[in-house]
Amino acid sequence: MATADKRAKLRDDLIDAAETAVAVSGLSGLKARALAEAAGCAVGAIYNVFPDLDALIYEVNARTLRRLDAHLAAASDPGDDPETAMRKLALSYHRFSRAERRRWTAVFAHQIPDGAMPPDWYLGVVAQLFRHIEGPLTTLLPDASPQMRNGLARTLFSASHGIVSLGLEEKLGPAPDEVIANALVVMTRSWVLGLPGAVAPPTRP
Amino acid sequence: MATADKRAKLRDDLIDAAETAVAVSGLSGLKARALAEAAGCAVGAIYNVFPDLDALIYEVNARTLRRLDAHLAAASDPGDDPETAMRKLALSYHRFSRAERRRWTAVFAHQIPDGAMPPDWYLGVVAQLFRHIEGPLTTLLPDASPQMRNGLARTLFSASHGIVSLGLEEKLGPAPDEVIANALVVMTRSWVLGLPGAVAPPTRP
Repeated sequence: MATADKRAKLRDDLIDAAETAVAVSGLSGLKARALAEAAGCAVGAIYNVFPDLDALIYEVNARTLRRLDAHLAAASDPGDDPETAMRKLALSYHRFSRAERRRWTAVFAHQIPDGAMPPDWYLGVVAQLFRHIEGPLTTLLPDASPQMRNGLARTLFSASHGIVSLGLEEKLGPAPDEVIANALVVMTRSWVLGLPGAVAPPTRP
Repeated sequence: MATADKRAKLRDDLIDAAETAVAVSGLSGLKARALAEAAGCAVGAIYNVFPDLDALIYEVNARTLRRLDAHLAAASDPGDDPETAMRKLALSYHRFSRAERRRWTAVFAHQIPDGAMPPDWYLGVVAQLFRHIEGPLTTLLPDASPQMRNGLARTLFSASHGIVSLGLEEKLGPAPDEVIANALVVMTRSWVLGLPGAVAPPTRP
């Protein structure tokens, strides 16, 4: 293989190894020595293809987000009314988070230094997700600007994430799956009923 | 001092030392050796008063939750309408989380083994918080049962927590304080408008 091909292969092998380690034991399972062994390279070679382990973690987390994206796309049906669409998205997010628990947790548990931001390419992968919610919001709030819909999609995602994450981690006490799902159903219903009044521009007299 | 008093004092000193360590550098700053040094005891003496470091972390996190409780109580005014009350609570939660960033993060970052639950006394401290949201929900949904209101209060707390935590950690991209606050304002408004229709029992014809 040419040097560039070898380098690309090592990069992929390291992402594969890191993804497996995260799926088995979370971010705390990510050790440079074990990764190098799994990818068949020297520990130092990791740093020829990634500046640091954070860069490798972003690659693993981006894979998780791309799978989530496909999962949400499969839950959507262009014929759904806004309430059905948002309910399906929220319940689909719950199922994905539960099924890919450790990889999904790694997306949010990844700590970077105070004040540091994720790289732009990674934030681009995150930003893709909001289009699923922007769809039903366009039907629900036809007068809202694209910026307003995007901000609202981020808010609704964050709210759903709070319900799913505190629920799955049982931070507030026991939270069976049906309790989490019911909370998401009530919440999406309240948005469909309440958001048009909450964010619609005031009507002129 | 009598043995029981000495034991109680060591317990308090260890909680103080752990709280300081968490405030300075988060849960990862909690090391038995440093705690013992700060409390002036042998490392082994920690385990005479706490079964393990998890038990000590619950004490620290309970202090944070009790301060949050006082902070939310100070934000409430019995004369407020439900929208004002819920908006004040959500914005107060945002301010507290930002002001006590590391201690607040420790409440949610504390990892316990899969399937384990926090102790009952700690869940009791958590449960106290929901009464702040149950107040405005009683005005908003007079026909809802106490169980329904409690479940809804947990859902609304979780949703607000998702907005605050993903915002403060900037997990979805840059999130200035006014963006987080605006998301909370729109969200609480939509609940006041939407929840009565979303969860009220169907009216009889």
